[in-house]
Amino acid sequence: MTLRAAYYEGQRTLRVGDGSSQRPGPGQVQLQVAYCGICGTDLHLFHGHMDHRVHVPQVFGHEVSATIHAVGDGVESFKVGDHVTVRPLDPCGECPACRAGNSHVCQRLKFIGIDAPGALQTLWTVPAHTLHRLPDQLALETAALVEPMAVACHDVRRAQLNRGEYAVIQGGGPIGILIAIVARQHGAKVLITEVNSFRLNLVRELGFEAMNPQTEDVVSYVNEQTGTAGADVVFEVSGSAAGAASMTKLARVRGRIVVVAVFSEVPKVDLFQFFWRELELAGTRLYQPHDFEEAIELVSSGKLPLNRLISEVCPLEKTESALHQLESGGAAMKILVRCSE
Amino acid sequence: MTLRAAYYEGQRTLRVGDGSSQRPGPGQVQLQVAYCGICGTDLHLFHGHMDHRVHVPQVFGHEVSATIHAVGDGVESFKVGDHVTVRPLDPCGECPACRAGNSHVCQRLKFIGIDAPGALQTLWTVPAHTLHRLPDQLALETAALVEPMAVACHDVRRAQLNRGEYAVIQGGGPIGILIAIVARQHGAKVLITEVNSFRLNLVRELGFEAMNPQTEDVVSYVNEQTGTAGADVVFEVSGSAAGAASMTKLARVRGRIVVVAVFSEVPKVDLFQFFWRELELAGTRLYQPHDFEEAIELVSSGKLPLNRLISEVCPLEKTESALHQLESGGAAMKILVRCSE
Repeated sequence: MTLRAAYYEGQRTLRVGDGSSQRPGPGQVQLQVAYCGICGTDLHLFHGHMDHRVHVPQVFGHEVSATIHAVGDGVESFKVGDHVTVRPLDPCGECPACRAGNSHVCQRLKFIGIDAPGALQTLWTVPAHTLHRLPDQLALETAALVEPMAVACHDVRRAQLNRGEYAVIQGGGPIGILIAIVARQHGAKVLITEVNSFRLNLVRELGFEAMNPQTEDVVSYVNEQTGTAGADVVFEVSGSAAGAASMTKLARVRGRIVVVAVFSEVPKVDLFQFFWRELELAGTRLYQPHDFEEAIELVSSGKLPLNRLISEVCPLEKTESALHQLESGGAAMKILVRCSE
Repeated sequence: MTLRAAYYEGQRTLRVGDGSSQRPGPGQVQLQVAYCGICGTDLHLFHGHMDHRVHVPQVFGHEVSATIHAVGDGVESFKVGDHVTVRPLDPCGECPACRAGNSHVCQRLKFIGIDAPGALQTLWTVPAHTLHRLPDQLALETAALVEPMAVACHDVRRAQLNRGEYAVIQGGGPIGILIAIVARQHGAKVLITEVNSFRLNLVRELGFEAMNPQTEDVVSYVNEQTGTAGADVVFEVSGSAAGAASMTKLARVRGRIVVVAVFSEVPKVDLFQFFWRELELAGTRLYQPHDFEEAIELVSSGKLPLNRLISEVCPLEKTESALHQLESGGAAMKILVRCSE
């Protein structure tokens, strides 16, 4: 059976071509991929930063909405025609992290879309245990945002955010905005800091307060807004040295800092401030099944301005130019690839 | 009424001389100080690092055991002759941190012994709200360890340490050893890392496992001991760049790092590891009233090898030479000053 796929061939090259596909094996499901969002991890992959992990030609992509096309033996919870999304994690089930109930941060985690073929193809076979059912009335285009929304739900859960708390989100890209949306749903007051003016404008159009930390004094503003206390929670989503420096200045006594970003360089962190104000910090990665359930509920509610995050929908053939557009850092937010008609 | 006191006069100079003392005012208590331990903060003060906070001549010191000598108006819970120790904190009671129940990290905290006169004198007047009663049978010499023990109790509480967990303590000075003692009491397995050979030997004589991170591969050892998991908790007490680098290597997936040390320089911290393994970090400072109650109970139990931590007891006149001995970093652990006969 033939399929079309976007193959990463190394050296910033993506080739869209034909491939072949077998029927799904036992416990597997074959999906007809509807939409696949492109995320920062895909960009890292395209830039060659994960060449040690991938085997070219590699199909990547993992933010999907899909319809079930075929079902393997032993799969009873899903049937052909169901709308689904994928939690693209394949944990070992045996390491200390898995045994402690943290299989999403399994010490030998296989991420489907990096360590196994991903979603940028017309047909995609995955283990049935990765699937979450989507409500029929949810548009498949919007449903491609469930995976990044699950990241945001996980981040907010890790922050132990309470109603009425003041949260600063450093970074107004797709994940930062989704965190802001989830935090607002949880009853928090939200301030987003961002340096890109296209993103700043979009954030404001979505009704969030936003500041540019390169030109405005965010710490003074937050202290004013909180009666000198400081922010209850800081989400560090920028991955920058400046973000690592400001996070400890913004948090209140016993405030929580949540590190969402992937830092490619080891930054300086003011540990004295952790001592002085008994700050707390939690790293956060990926998601757990209940984060997907919460994300599906939020995305399906129809009340959130999610479609404003989708800056473009392109066909599979245009995947490489979409990657170039994202790396230019300009007027792009979330780009979806339409993988099948 | 005359008293003797050790006056810090700036520029690494301490002068022991006479002073005068008034009767305690309303809500105050005058103590006859028995013993005062010298801690790292006192050394920082002696080195001039806090000259912006202190007014010379300044009496410092805050790890005390004492007998009540006089009681001011309105003080009903204590009487002359009671044995007490002091929780040397004077919070404002009004800032956001105080209102949130965290008055020990008050945003305008006065630390008695830095921001107000300390204990290195024969007679010391403090607010009655700072006192904790000591059991009569507890030797006043040992009781001078209650304050640092309360620090350790607070640190272990912040770590949320559970029975059977594996804890690495980076730094085998007095606080590191007291944390080890408290952690062992809480049922944890403990490994101490330390570079000073005098301290390494003492740590081992106290029955703790210990390694020198400059000559031994602590990470491999901890992974072996924990079935590849890593440490449940890492207490960073060294305040060094090396300690900041190793803490993220030692902790297991979702492991907790507790920053106890006062970092005088901003170190690099591998935030990628916080993301990758969902690490958690909590800064910890000082203590709360229940930490003192737990510390008094532990110190009074008579079962802990606390007197081994007291490397010397010297008279008030020898305070400056005790400071010199501590700063040399050699064969000293906790030095107590006998403040009155």
